[in-house]
Amino acid sequence: MLEQLKQEVYEANLLLPEYGLVIFTWGNVSAVSRKQGRIVIKPSGVEYEDLTPEKMAVTDLEGRKTERGYEPSSDTLTHAVLYERFPEIGAVVHTHSPWATSWAQAGRDIPCYGTTHADYILGEIPCVRGLTREEAEGEYERNTGFVIAEELERRRLDPLRVPVVLCRNHGVFAWGRDAMEAVHNAAAAEEIAKMAARTEQISPFAEPAPEALVNRHYFRKHGEGAYYGQQPGQK
Amino acid sequence: MLEQLKQEVYEANLLLPEYGLVIFTWGNVSAVSRKQGRIVIKPSGVEYEDLTPEKMAVTDLEGRKTERGYEPSSDTLTHAVLYERFPEIGAVVHTHSPWATSWAQAGRDIPCYGTTHADYILGEIPCVRGLTREEAEGEYERNTGFVIAEELERRRLDPLRVPVVLCRNHGVFAWGRDAMEAVHNAAAAEEIAKMAARTEQISPFAEPAPEALVNRHYFRKHGEGAYYGQQPGQK
Amino acid sequence: MLEQLKQEVYEANLLLPEYGLVIFTWGNVSAVSRKQGRIVIKPSGVEYEDLTPEKMAVTDLEGRKTERGYEPSSDTLTHAVLYERFPEIGAVVHTHSPWATSWAQAGRDIPCYGTTHADYILGEIPCVRGLTREEAEGEYERNTGFVIAEELERRRLDPLRVPVVLCRNHGVFAWGRDAMEAVHNAAAAEEIAKMAARTEQISPFAEPAPEALVNRHYFRKHGEGAYYGQQPGQK
Amino acid sequence: MLEQLKQEVYEANLLLPEYGLVIFTWGNVSAVSRKQGRIVIKPSGVEYEDLTPEKMAVTDLEGRKTERGYEPSSDTLTHAVLYERFPEIGAVVHTHSPWATSWAQAGRDIPCYGTTHADYILGEIPCVRGLTREEAEGEYERNTGFVIAEELERRRLDPLRVPVVLCRNHGVFAWGRDAMEAVHNAAAAEEIAKMAARTEQISPFAEPAPEALVNRHYFRKHGEGAYYGQQPGQK
Repeated sequence: MLEQLKQEVYEANLLLPEYGLVIFTWGNVSAVSRKQGRIVIKPSGVEYEDLTPEKMAVTDLEGRKTERGYEPSSDTLTHAVLYERFPEIGAVVHTHSPWATSWAQAGRDIPCYGTTHADYILGEIPCVRGLTREEAEGEYERNTGFVIAEELERRRLDPLRVPVVLCRNHGVFAWGRDAMEAVHNAAAAEEIAKMAARTEQISPFAEPAPEALVNRHYFRKHGEGAYYGQQPGQK
Repeated sequence: MLEQLKQEVYEANLLLPEYGLVIFTWGNVSAVSRKQGRIVIKPSGVEYEDLTPEKMAVTDLEGRKTERGYEPSSDTLTHAVLYERFPEIGAVVHTHSPWATSWAQAGRDIPCYGTTHADYILGEIPCVRGLTREEAEGEYERNTGFVIAEELERRRLDPLRVPVVLCRNHGVFAWGRDAMEAVHNAAAAEEIAKMAARTEQISPFAEPAPEALVNRHYFRKHGEGAYYGQQPGQK
Repeated sequence: MLEQLKQEVYEANLLLPEYGLVIFTWGNVSAVSRKQGRIVIKPSGVEYEDLTPEKMAVTDLEGRKTERGYEPSSDTLTHAVLYERFPEIGAVVHTHSPWATSWAQAGRDIPCYGTTHADYILGEIPCVRGLTREEAEGEYERNTGFVIAEELERRRLDPLRVPVVLCRNHGVFAWGRDAMEAVHNAAAAEEIAKMAARTEQISPFAEPAPEALVNRHYFRKHGEGAYYGQQPGQK
Repeated sequence: MLEQLKQEVYEANLLLPEYGLVIFTWGNVSAVSRKQGRIVIKPSGVEYEDLTPEKMAVTDLEGRKTERGYEPSSDTLTHAVLYERFPEIGAVVHTHSPWATSWAQAGRDIPCYGTTHADYILGEIPCVRGLTREEAEGEYERNTGFVIAEELERRRLDPLRVPVVLCRNHGVFAWGRDAMEAVHNAAAAEEIAKMAARTEQISPFAEPAPEALVNRHYFRKHGEGAYYGQQPGQK
């Protein structure tokens, strides 16, 4: 009964190498069926070219394996925490995409330097604090989810308006209403991270885009007054 | 009767991802038939791989949709203003190509550091001023066209000799006599932007190319004394 | 009887251009059969597209050609020294992959800035000292192996936990238990080198990842308590 | 009778876009038959995908068109001067390859930071002085050839040991004994230019490779004592 979700998660995982976001097995996509209480996620350590929809791993909402079959990604507990804390999301992506990961390693939020960023994310892409020694040595993967959720709460951010974060010294977590949207957000974040680094290379005095421009772009694509794209039924 | 123009605009749009100038739907090409009073432009939010010539959107010269069919790009009014203000141009391209957009985000003109630049553009690639809050919150897309046109007028630039500008904190607008030329200019600008950033990385003391060299290259390709390329009828 | 090893070395060599680690003939992979006292290595100066398993060169453990056929890589003696000094390794890779080679040319160790690095290498990627005039003018290739081995000994590093080094003003040597693992390590090192350079570009004040995070990532993939990947027999 | 040379020049020209050295028509390869007194060169302004061996343009040793057919590259007179001044060379390449051109725009020689460079070029890649106003406004293309030749003479460099130069604010000229070698040198120079820029990014205090290492690498590939590659008759 999770066949369709497995298919979606499978296809979304394949987009990670296609979009240049991962090499080898350095990333994973999951999606949740809240109705059925199940998370479908990439199996751990399996090469993308060897994936099939049937090999997708299945867990309960606490991230415990529920079906015979492949072991889920070692990052599953982070995904599970995000589903618990952000009820509005339906899919999570983790990558070590190189530009965004470089910002994560630098320990910096990505400033909103332009409309490419504002088309997807309202405000900075937050860099979440590093884990303490206790958090890293304890339930590391769950704790990673907790610090992400706490950072968004502390900054009073809406997870659907800020669907990407950087984990310090680690990589990217992105999400969305479904697996395609989550991957799309991860790919946009990588391009945004690349351009932000180059912006600062070209001018160390670069300043974030003005608020009016940012709001204009974000809200012409998102929310009630949006006028980007086709009318329902057209496309 | 706009079939041929739709075909040209369709093919030119497909070149944007092929040349690495856009991912997803981050760009658009239009062309104008001044005789018929029509602009043909990429439909809004449609993936490049889903485009067909028939899906191209059609508007009048004020950018108002005139045919049943797809909604035009949300940037249509910018294109319309450029057609109005620059009577010599036949096509307009908008992209968020990463190197040129990084210059736009840095808020800097691209200096002419060499002959690659001088083969296409006479002088700097201008970075147009940002919009005021009123301009961004008002008729944003039309105002974007107005500030581009005003910047060229203020600098007394010929739009065919400076066929590319950067919109601050936004991206690139380029144009040409037809859709292919406009896309060609946008692709050249991206390569020029990349090399200019690296030039400054390699030497913070780099200086623009001497005027005599710039003129030599520009005018051996453009204008009456041009001697680049094949004779008419040869190629 | 070395057919299988030749096939493995052949396939691993082909991955070098596929992974973007070499152009032209700028790299080589070897593997050792300690039982048979033989090293199988890429032939010198042969283009990757012209390789076949049969063209792989064979030497004894001192790097002397033992079979009729192609001349072995000019770097063979470096490989031979590494096999002698590191009994636990089964394959060696040499590349001039561009990011890692840039660190080698800069003469710097690559700091461990994040979990991508920690998933593969425990601690910094060492940059080995340059050769003296006498060492460069004498048995250059053997001396290159000696300085690598001495650097690891001096730093008391385990070659399987630090399977990559940079040779100053030269390039990369990586190794592993077999040819695929060695190439995988070389590819990971290139990606790590790229992200480390960008990390410092984004923040000149970037600091290495905390020890607890590094250990967590390294040991969840390597050693007795590892929980990354599938159970034996599953995958 | 120039059929074979046309075929070689045709194939070498196609390698320019394949190796990522040019986009559009931003480069050209020629070769000379000194016996027949002819230069074969890419036709001006023709796209690479439209080239055929028959379309190659033919000139005499002064660069004057001698066959009916396509107009030769607008850079032909530079090629002709190089053939005249460097009797040992058989082919010339001109590109605007992005990294090397960025060094040319920065007006800097490329230091020899490592063995990748030393495998191809003995010493720095020279950046030739800019042309004076008179030289640029006069016989520009011939003058470009003259300043290249004068720079090598002034530095007492052997054109076969230093087969690449940068023309200030312009691009790359490379050469070799035949068209394939010339293109190979141009491709190596681009990779070397990329790594040199990154070397300085990673360490502003980077120093050129020691002379003994440079000589070792250059002379193990070139000259009488060379031991790189296969014996004649083997490969």
